[in-house]
This record gives sequence, structure tokens and C-alpha cells, in this order.
Amino acid sequence: MPDRTACVLVIGNEVLSGRTRDANIPMLATGLAGLGIALREARIIPDVHEAIVSALHDVRDRFDLVFTTGGIGPTHDDITAEAVSAAFGVELEQNPDAVKRLRDYYGPEHLTPARLRMARIPSGAALLDNPVSAAPGFCIGNVYVLAGVPRIAAACFDLLKPGLAGGAAIISRAVSAAVRESDLAVSLGGIQASFPDVDIGSYPFMTPTGYGVSIVARGTDPERLDQAAAAVADAMRALGVEPFFADHAAAADESS
Amino acid sequence: MPDRTACVLVIGNEVLSGRTRDANIPMLATGLAGLGIALREARIIPDVHEAIVSALHDVRDRFDLVFTTGGIGPTHDDITAEAVSAAFGVELEQNPDAVKRLRDYYGPEHLTPARLRMARIPSGAALLDNPVSAAPGFCIGNVYVLAGVPRIAAACFDLLKPGLAGGAAIISRAVSAAVRESDLAVSLGGIQASFPDVDIGSYPFMTPTGYGVSIVARGTDPERLDQAAAAVADAMRALGVEPFFADHAAAADESS
Repeated sequence: MPDRTACVLVIGNEVLSGRTRDANIPMLATGLAGLGIALREARIIPDVHEAIVSALHDVRDRFDLVFTTGGIGPTHDDITAEAVSAAFGVELEQNPDAVKRLRDYYGPEHLTPARLRMARIPSGAALLDNPVSAAPGFCIGNVYVLAGVPRIAAACFDLLKPGLAGGAAIISRAVSAAVRESDLAVSLGGIQASFPDVDIGSYPFMTPTGYGVSIVARGTDPERLDQAAAAVADAMRALGVEPFFADHAAAADESS
Repeated sequence: MPDRTACVLVIGNEVLSGRTRDANIPMLATGLAGLGIALREARIIPDVHEAIVSALHDVRDRFDLVFTTGGIGPTHDDITAEAVSAAFGVELEQNPDAVKRLRDYYGPEHLTPARLRMARIPSGAALLDNPVSAAPGFCIGNVYVLAGVPRIAAACFDLLKPGLAGGAAIISRAVSAAVRESDLAVSLGGIQASFPDVDIGSYPFMTPTGYGVSIVARGTDPERLDQAAAAVADAMRALGVEPFFADHAAAADESS
């Protein structure tokens, strides 16, 4: 199991209102797993100063890495940079390098006060490149502050990956079958006990014609995953159903 | 602004691994807003006993209502009921009414020990009807425990709605235009200051041909929302662009 852990804080009233569906948690979850970093918690919190500061205090000591998305744009509801400064007890200051990036992008004649808001960076933070729209994210301590627009967040995170790499990637094997989860439960518990180094999850799904279940084995050792998946497949065959080793695709209607 | 607040805890390794995209947070966010209940936080946490207990301790006093999804099925990784019992300091016991529901649904000859796991309910909890697959959720204190499968979670929540109703619904008006968010920032700040009872959010988006922004006014008074939206539209026209009052549809690539 991986050594490094991460937490994501999505800062955005628009997600809590149900208006916007978050796309950054799945992007970061998948990307972090590929780097051997386990995402252990994700929180969606409002654009409220105290809520952001309090969440940062709560999570920055509990996880190795913290990623925030949202709230670093030019409008009145973009308050993430202030909140991160407050959480770290440092000044929020106009960063000359950030100003230069914005001036180069917008042109000096369009560098309005609103756009200059996006150059306010906590003292001591390192800027993160934004290859889409210039306004930088930043990193302070173990906290990486990214934009909320998914295309920008993903582009920034891609640039961070080489620096974050190092652990063994977390990989998975999925075995599915048209059986009821509850018929597989006992043998599955036995398989999990035999493979303490593998994380085995059971995800029932429904189809127009009945029930099925996808069993997902996750870990870092491909051989152990193959062995665990084979044991699951045998347990499915013992119920008289032939398993398939492709993942059930309709993830929208499944969950444990 | 609404009086009652809510928090959602999504319990599921499959969401943290990026394998499954959560559908329950948007469903609950939208449904709660319609009931006049403000969703103030949502957390995705792993299928780990201590993580669930600790999250429940943290949020149940801070919010009026807590909804959990996931982890109440028949397999070894379904540990939500135990964790809720531990958080409330009550016994986890076989609930006779839950046993009856499972027996009626599966038939007495198919009521296996694994399926009976789903009848283990914290002492003192009230069962929540599951019109899809019988195995009940439950409510204890201010915590509502729902299944993770989105179809089941949504069906259970629909049945809860009449009992939760009472506040004025939270509604919204959206105004969009092909302008840059940063050009609108100053006038938008002024509009927010003039409408302290309205929550005004700014959500930039990108299109193949350029940039745009959706401004969303949320609150409970339709007249105030109309006034705020009209002020936003005027500010957009002042930039020489005609606004449109439909919401920008491509919510997948926007965020604050």
C-alpha cells in the first residue's frame, strides 16, 4: 500500500448547490493513483473564509499532500488565496512574477485591478504554471492551490506530476459477473482475509435485466492482484456464472 | 437564507480511487435545495471504521442534518452500520422489521447470513424504506444512512422529502454572456454589496471560440433574484455584449 496520502478540498458553492458537477475530484483521484499517492479524503466546502481556513487546519497535518481547487479567479467570490494566507499565518502580497505572467497574457493595457487580484499570492508560496490562461496557482507548505475550471486544473496538475512521482502506481483488476453481491459475500470475505495486501471492493450494479457485481482488487503488486482476481473469478464460477474480466462500464449506477 | 443546514458523507473507496464518479452528492444537493435546506459540506471518505466514526463526530454537531451514502450492503467492505453504532455509542443489533423486509424480498429460503448482515441496524434507529431492493437505510439522531447505489439512494431520499420539507425553496437565476469574468469583476462586486440577501456566484467557462461567464444569483426571494439578475445583465450590456438568461449548459468545464 502506498506511503503517501492526499486530500482534495473543492472550494465552490456551485458544487454544493448541485448546479455544477465536480470534475476535479475524479481527475485528481485517477492522477494521484497513477503516481502511487492514495487519495484518502475529498471535501467540498463553500466559498466562506472561515470554512476554508478551518478545513485547511483540519487536513494539512493529517495528509502528506493537500490539493485545493477553485476560488482563485478575479471576482468577489474568489477568496481562496486570502484563506490560505490566513491558514498559514503569512501575508497575502502582490507577487511580481504573477503580475508579469498576467501582463504578458492580457497585455499591459488590459491589466485591470480585477485581473491583478489573481496576482495576490501568499508570501513564500511558489507559483504553479497555468498553461491555459496564465493566472498561476501556487504551492505553500504541503498545499497545492489550483484553479476550479477543470481544463485549467487538469493542465496544472499534469505539469506537477513529474515532481510528485516516485511511489509505485496503484493499479487494479476488476472482475464482474451477473450474480447478486450477497451471494458472493462469504467467499469474498475469505478472499480479502487471504489477501491482506490487496484492497478488495464490491460494487453492485443494476441492468435492465437484473443484478450484477464488479469486484475490484487494488494494490501495487500486479501478481498479487492477478491472484486475487483469479480467486474472485473462481468464486463466481462456483455460483454457476462465468465472470468477465472487463470492468462494468455503467459506473453511474453503482456504488458500494 | 435558509435556516437548516446539511452535510453529506459519501463512504466509498471506489470514489476516492477515481473508479466511480459520485452521483449522490449532486442528487442530494439539488433535492435539499428544493426543500429549503442548504448543503454546506460534502465529504468523500474511505471504507475505514475510524475514518467514518471520526467524520460523524466532526459533522453531526455542526450541521442540522447529515446524510451518508454507501457501505450498507452485504459484503466485508460494508461497515457503515457498525461505524454509525460506534459513533452514537449504541449496540448494532438484528432488527426484526429489517429481517422481515429482507425475507419478504428474497424469500425465506434465500435469506442467507450475508443478506442478514443488511438487517443489522443501530439500536434505536428508525428504518428508511428502500423501494428498489428492500434492504433498508436508517435514521438515528440527525443522521440519515442511505445506500450507495444511486438509484436506491435517490428512491430513499424521495420518500424522505415530505418529512424534511418546510423551508422556502432555494432558487436561482442565471445570466450568461460571452465576456471575460475579469472584465465583469468590479461591477459584480458592487451588485453583491447591494444584494446582501442574495448569494452571487461567478462561473467562467470556455468555448471553442472564446471565453464566457455565467453569473448565478441564489436565494429564496424570487423578486430579489430577478432584480439582481437584471443588474448583472445591465453590467454585461455595459461591456457591449448582450446577455442571455439561460444557464450555460456545459457545466462540466466550468467552476469558480
